[in-house]
Amino acid sequence: MRIEHDLLGERELSDECYYGIHTLRAKENFDLSGRSIHPKLVEALVTVKKACAITNCEIGRLDKKIGEAIIKACDEIIEGKYRDQFVVDAMQGGAGTSANMNANEVIANRAIELLGGKRGDYTVVHPLDHVNMSQSTNDVFPTAVRIAAIKLLKSVSELFAKLQNALQEKEEEFADVLKVGRTQLQDAVPVMLGQEFGAWAQAVSRDRWRLYKAEERLRQVNLGGTAAGTGINAPKKYIFMVVDKLRELTGIGLARAEYMMDPTQNADVFVEVSSLLKTSAVNLSKIASDLRLLASGPKAGFGEIILPAVQAGSSIMPGKVNPVIPEAVNQIAFRIIGNDTVIAIAAQSGQLELNPFLPVIADSLFETLDLLRKGLEIFTNNCIKRIKADEKRCKELVENSFTLCTALIPHIGYDKASEVSKKCLKSGRNLREVVLEEGILDEESLNSILNPINLTRPGVPGKKGGN
Amino acid sequence: MRIEHDLLGERELSDECYYGIHTLRAKENFDLSGRSIHPKLVEALVTVKKACAITNCEIGRLDKKIGEAIIKACDEIIEGKYRDQFVVDAMQGGAGTSANMNANEVIANRAIELLGGKRGDYTVVHPLDHVNMSQSTNDVFPTAVRIAAIKLLKSVSELFAKLQNALQEKEEEFADVLKVGRTQLQDAVPVMLGQEFGAWAQAVSRDRWRLYKAEERLRQVNLGGTAAGTGINAPKKYIFMVVDKLRELTGIGLARAEYMMDPTQNADVFVEVSSLLKTSAVNLSKIASDLRLLASGPKAGFGEIILPAVQAGSSIMPGKVNPVIPEAVNQIAFRIIGNDTVIAIAAQSGQLELNPFLPVIADSLFETLDLLRKGLEIFTNNCIKRIKADEKRCKELVENSFTLCTALIPHIGYDKASEVSKKCLKSGRNLREVVLEEGILDEESLNSILNPINLTRPGVPGKKGGN
Amino acid sequence: MRIEHDLLGERELSDECYYGIHTLRAKENFDLSGRSIHPKLVEALVTVKKACAITNCEIGRLDKKIGEAIIKACDEIIEGKYRDQFVVDAMQGGAGTSANMNANEVIANRAIELLGGKRGDYTVVHPLDHVNMSQSTNDVFPTAVRIAAIKLLKSVSELFAKLQNALQEKEEEFADVLKVGRTQLQDAVPVMLGQEFGAWAQAVSRDRWRLYKAEERLRQVNLGGTAAGTGINAPKKYIFMVVDKLRELTGIGLARAEYMMDPTQNADVFVEVSSLLKTSAVNLSKIASDLRLLASGPKAGFGEIILPAVQAGSSIMPGKVNPVIPEAVNQIAFRIIGNDTVIAIAAQSGQLELNPFLPVIADSLFETLDLLRKGLEIFTNNCIKRIKADEKRCKELVENSFTLCTALIPHIGYDKASEVSKKCLKSGRNLREVVLEEGILDEESLNSILNPINLTRPGVPGKKGGN
Amino acid sequence: MRIEHDLLGERELSDECYYGIHTLRAKENFDLSGRSIHPKLVEALVTVKKACAITNCEIGRLDKKIGEAIIKACDEIIEGKYRDQFVVDAMQGGAGTSANMNANEVIANRAIELLGGKRGDYTVVHPLDHVNMSQSTNDVFPTAVRIAAIKLLKSVSELFAKLQNALQEKEEEFADVLKVGRTQLQDAVPVMLGQEFGAWAQAVSRDRWRLYKAEERLRQVNLGGTAAGTGINAPKKYIFMVVDKLRELTGIGLARAEYMMDPTQNADVFVEVSSLLKTSAVNLSKIASDLRLLASGPKAGFGEIILPAVQAGSSIMPGKVNPVIPEAVNQIAFRIIGNDTVIAIAAQSGQLELNPFLPVIADSLFETLDLLRKGLEIFTNNCIKRIKADEKRCKELVENSFTLCTALIPHIGYDKASEVSKKCLKSGRNLREVVLEEGILDEESLNSILNPINLTRPGVPGKKGGN
Repeated sequence: MRIEHDLLGERELSDECYYGIHTLRAKENFDLSGRSIHPKLVEALVTVKKACAITNCEIGRLDKKIGEAIIKACDEIIEGKYRDQFVVDAMQGGAGTSANMNANEVIANRAIELLGGKRGDYTVVHPLDHVNMSQSTNDVFPTAVRIAAIKLLKSVSELFAKLQNALQEKEEEFADVLKVGRTQLQDAVPVMLGQEFGAWAQAVSRDRWRLYKAEERLRQVNLGGTAAGTGINAPKKYIFMVVDKLRELTGIGLARAEYMMDPTQNADVFVEVSSLLKTSAVNLSKIASDLRLLASGPKAGFGEIILPAVQAGSSIMPGKVNPVIPEAVNQIAFRIIGNDTVIAIAAQSGQLELNPFLPVIADSLFETLDLLRKGLEIFTNNCIKRIKADEKRCKELVENSFTLCTALIPHIGYDKASEVSKKCLKSGRNLREVVLEEGILDEESLNSILNPINLTRPGVPGKKGGN
Repeated sequence: MRIEHDLLGERELSDECYYGIHTLRAKENFDLSGRSIHPKLVEALVTVKKACAITNCEIGRLDKKIGEAIIKACDEIIEGKYRDQFVVDAMQGGAGTSANMNANEVIANRAIELLGGKRGDYTVVHPLDHVNMSQSTNDVFPTAVRIAAIKLLKSVSELFAKLQNALQEKEEEFADVLKVGRTQLQDAVPVMLGQEFGAWAQAVSRDRWRLYKAEERLRQVNLGGTAAGTGINAPKKYIFMVVDKLRELTGIGLARAEYMMDPTQNADVFVEVSSLLKTSAVNLSKIASDLRLLASGPKAGFGEIILPAVQAGSSIMPGKVNPVIPEAVNQIAFRIIGNDTVIAIAAQSGQLELNPFLPVIADSLFETLDLLRKGLEIFTNNCIKRIKADEKRCKELVENSFTLCTALIPHIGYDKASEVSKKCLKSGRNLREVVLEEGILDEESLNSILNPINLTRPGVPGKKGGN
Repeated sequence: MRIEHDLLGERELSDECYYGIHTLRAKENFDLSGRSIHPKLVEALVTVKKACAITNCEIGRLDKKIGEAIIKACDEIIEGKYRDQFVVDAMQGGAGTSANMNANEVIANRAIELLGGKRGDYTVVHPLDHVNMSQSTNDVFPTAVRIAAIKLLKSVSELFAKLQNALQEKEEEFADVLKVGRTQLQDAVPVMLGQEFGAWAQAVSRDRWRLYKAEERLRQVNLGGTAAGTGINAPKKYIFMVVDKLRELTGIGLARAEYMMDPTQNADVFVEVSSLLKTSAVNLSKIASDLRLLASGPKAGFGEIILPAVQAGSSIMPGKVNPVIPEAVNQIAFRIIGNDTVIAIAAQSGQLELNPFLPVIADSLFETLDLLRKGLEIFTNNCIKRIKADEKRCKELVENSFTLCTALIPHIGYDKASEVSKKCLKSGRNLREVVLEEGILDEESLNSILNPINLTRPGVPGKKGGN
Repeated sequence: MRIEHDLLGERELSDECYYGIHTLRAKENFDLSGRSIHPKLVEALVTVKKACAITNCEIGRLDKKIGEAIIKACDEIIEGKYRDQFVVDAMQGGAGTSANMNANEVIANRAIELLGGKRGDYTVVHPLDHVNMSQSTNDVFPTAVRIAAIKLLKSVSELFAKLQNALQEKEEEFADVLKVGRTQLQDAVPVMLGQEFGAWAQAVSRDRWRLYKAEERLRQVNLGGTAAGTGINAPKKYIFMVVDKLRELTGIGLARAEYMMDPTQNADVFVEVSSLLKTSAVNLSKIASDLRLLASGPKAGFGEIILPAVQAGSSIMPGKVNPVIPEAVNQIAFRIIGNDTVIAIAAQSGQLELNPFLPVIADSLFETLDLLRKGLEIFTNNCIKRIKADEKRCKELVENSFTLCTALIPHIGYDKASEVSKKCLKSGRNLREVVLEEGILDEESLNSILNPINLTRPGVPGKKGGN
């Protein structure tokens, strides 16, 4: 047991604790989400601390010995040690001060140990005077959130690429599966099943590009701006060096914001990133819903595709297999749409020189990123890649429906085509039968019109050159 | 190691596992939120299972020995054992089937043990044939979600009552602290600081009533409705008995929905409950923002109240104490507004006989309830109760502002009052000085008009009987 | 042309204008939504003014002659005259001041005319001193918004009743149409088409109850509270009388809030009402989506119901009829969900003694109410009432699917039933054929099990008494 | 009176009507929002029609005479004529079919007139066969929505540029006004008032860039894709030519989507654009709230800036001037956040080959764009440009607060600085007094530290070179 002090008084801390009194108070003050700050945020925070320590050493402000201990402590945490010491709640009030203090204290106490001191003896290494030197929560925390977001974005981005590939493989696989195209859920015109996957792949390709852009937006950091972005109390040499160090350490193309007061107070960049992620989630949700529709049945639905069975579907209905992966993807999208609203509200609630709601912005954004990452993984591997077409069903539905009727219009006119469609509906005969039996077109013409390729590519089916 | 089978094949399970192959697959299929289903939902699910087992025994459908083992297993879980065996993700696809199967399997395996069998030997107690007897996920899961929500609501409700009390205590404590009332952030008319707490208390009292109503809504359950709410395969005797058993076990006034297909497919009740919680969160957020405003400063802001310091405020600015608790409350409200959107989208996305998105609805609703519970706790105890007034500051601001000017209108007219206000602004003198020095009113009249009680109660200050 | 003055200077007004300089400035300041304030809000505002004038006369504060002219002017506007003079934008800044001033000026100028004066000669009747006597925007506007909302709610409520009736008529009409019940879009268990309408009707019946509750909430008004709800400058007699007058004039059970500061600053009641309306919109959207699914086809979809054709569906596909009414209903629901977010954000953004964002709250709430009113009208009359069942299709799908399989479990066990289902899927034979041909059950037993009534009512089909 | 027919029967139309039976039915079917489709959408739709007619003529599919009449009719409408004939509701069901038919019919009837025919005599010019030749609603409507959005975006974009300029002018004007910087609403460190405007200007400069990107996204159109994006029934020559014509007519760099099925069914691009606009609205809202804070008072608030009075503030409080323009801007932002949710829900609700909810997406997006356009206009001209600083107040607050204390830390240490701050708070003396009186620093050092420039620029105030 050791005693620590702060402006409110003193508190006992277990000897095992690497964190100190500030962290303890924050832990007690904010038992809210049950989540501590994201592991990637811990990593980013500590990497920032390391960059600052290196810089402070290089400009001669920080004692080398202390600096080295701090840097070593940071390295250990980055490698994964002492992670259980990061205990402050993800939804803490206070603009990230508690997360920053948690990092300061754990690093200080580990550095003290490395220098042969005893945890809590801040005369050896001080959480504020040394670890937090030239810094403020208000530049450290927004910078760390950006780094963590970029790291998470990168894996999401790769997973979107994999999803696009999987869709495009199916586009090819099902390139010749003629089926009913539906608009407003009504039988419309023929399409290839592969084309449906192709259209989804197109949407996903935009998502990849979106994420690429999102990452760019996050690269401007305010490290060096201290409390309000003016840079008060940070030595000029430090300011001009620290982001370079951070860029080296992270391998990310970070740049110091020209106007550091801006990223200190404005959270619009997070709104933008969340919004772009939401846009991509909208695409995922649309695809998931389409898959559930196309796989509906097996007998009393559309039944054009077969989703892989990944678990038994029902505790009461034998043999039922449910579209559980797409359903999970829909749910993920709903959450992400909700998170986007949270982030927008929090961002516009920022006041004057700071946005105190950055913790909830970060927490919601990281949830969005984690859900996308995990959701894309299962969607691509456990669903999309293993989809099968029911070609027989696809064919039957095309022939029994009137989707071919539209192709007749350029040859027999809209009114006649409508008439054919009505006759089919009344008599139960299919289009081919009605057209041939009633001598509306001869078989050769009809075949040329109803050639699947002609039907599903630009041009007028059955007319020369499609014109 | 044991082997279990399902329709997809076989899988190895560690001997320690009480859960079985269905749970294992679901665990792998849905590694999404990182949260398993809420402890209160586990408890509710298992309580439903117990009620079903009791009923199945009583109507003679379930073998007594098996039934008793199931009941005993349920009791153990309800008491808190085997909770680490509930491992399926809170955001699972599939309408709750995986949560239901997780409960079925853990209960079955514990019951098998109790009967001297070996885990995995489902000939002794079968997860589906015995534990899930007469049930479907589609009636069990929505019923359990309702029960868990009601339990969580009750504690939230009590905490709103405590917040109301705390506010009313402050209403009394600050009943005579005259201060500037502000509309549109502009100095307006005088109010008592106590009245501000009173107005917040009024809003909170509505919240209590809202939660009371919300609970009522959740009491209609579809247990007995099985797969689609028609009650197929559940014996009639069972259907007419099982909700009574559940009511006894839970102590909640549950009732079987007359039309069980309705709660099986419609999730509007959760939207309503979430919306009412959101409404109460809106009040909390408004109060929290007001507190931050009133405590702004200490010197360059409103500075009329002093929030308790609960931790050091800044890593760079000495002596700064920040309004971290109200900030956390704002953040909670933002999340809850976002969750409400999630729930609305998910609810309206239900299709035909079932809403497959109930897991995300439940997860979001429980997050809302947990955040409210934990947020109310800290808001009441660590903030509201310990607020102090800066009476001197309040008084100064009243005297230096023109809020008293409105009270003059009935006596000297709107135009004259405007003139006084302009003179104050120009000269820097306060209202009392200007009025007396320029002989606009005599001192006695002015005192009667500016009597704090008259100024802040209905009526015309300075006129007889307020008329 | 006449000249009017305010604190900013003077402006010319056309002689035709009944509104004055304050309105003119507001009109120019806020050319935003393109909508002026809602007609029901105009009516409510003017009714409030009338109640105030009556009260001011009765307590002897307002000259009878002037009072009578004001009352007469109000009556004319309530009857529908001078409505083009209400020109301020619905999304005006300023907490409703501009709407209040617009009403004050139009009433004053019409009253001046009635007294033989010339518009603009405010010595005869003054917009502030007479029309606005004892009032503030901050009590008048919130009161008027509540009244308008209640009026709009009443017609929405009636239309929900009509929708419920229409659904229940269809419930009866389709009571014997056996069809496939689907959960997670997969064929599940048999239901009656009538039951599906019944389940929707149940949800709608809750909506009616919700609206009833919503109305209750709106009845507490702060009229008499003036600027901040303290009642400053309003004579006590007036305060105790004015809401009674307003109750008489509106026929609504209004009550003066005990704590008038509360409704002056807290907008949670509007959040609650909007949320309840949103909840009902969620139900409408779910029903609309279900209808679109059930009507999908006509050949390559579910095709179980036929929606009435209300217009030609396609400019390119002959004979296509689209579910345009349900699509419009979905769109309405989406808007209402969005409006609810707007209202929540605006409500929690209120500050101290007033919520300055009441105009956008009112505007969004009224849009929600109008959309519901108009949407319910077309949904009930142009869609629900005219829906037809395709009984033949419903029957075919039941027989060709395996939804009957669940009913076999209590008789032949889960495993055997699964086997039957697999055989059907493989061979293309239907369940009845497989069961009889393979001698699994005799015809009599099978008929008893597959009796449509047994299949769709609580109990075990084919067992005595359903047990 | 004339009679027209469609598949539902016949209807009378007034002779004055340029629209026909399809429009009439749609008008009756969808009396929902009370808004007809946006003028810019009418213009865009008709421009698309013109491009199609030109192309159809050039490839020889459309009779020249008819084509020319159609083109002339289009030109007249584009110039602003016959706008009252576009009567279908903005929230129509049916994916835009009614809007498309409205355009087809008005153009046809005007073209008939131009050719000397009688309105309704579609043998002269047919709405579908001629005006809609080679087209489907499903390619025409999404294309037109994109064009209208781009046109509206351009003016919004210019207005953001003007806002940025206005902010930067104020940045310069207030470059030397030292004031209290506040974080978490607590007095923090000194900043220049100009810097605050600069930080806002930075955020707005990102918004400009965002809108630029948003426009790019909208340029890919599916015109030529017809019903499902496969291009069925559109001659190949036409498909390869029509977007070129449209590009010429609009002056916008439109391009035919390579994969036309994609923009026919995917609405993610609108989500992205709406989201970027929302992001910019978040910035506007933050600025507006900050302005309201800084202008709070005039005596009992922050009072550091003076907003221009644009109208009288209160109907009861003399001389009160309210921040009505910023309040309107906040309200606009709230609506835009709500609209963004609407658009996301609608976009993810698209099904298979089409998104039938494009009308509500378009309507919400156009509302967002219109509100931004009008809001920016008033915000820049009637608020930002006319803001004045209260330099005296700014200075007083700096001197009376402890924001200067942070600057002392590098010179006297954190603990000593805290002590000074406590002494100030207790004694009421200001920092300068305490430091000098207690001999903590000499005057020269203190002056160098408290030099306004040093305090608000990167570096350690009072240290050589800021290091």
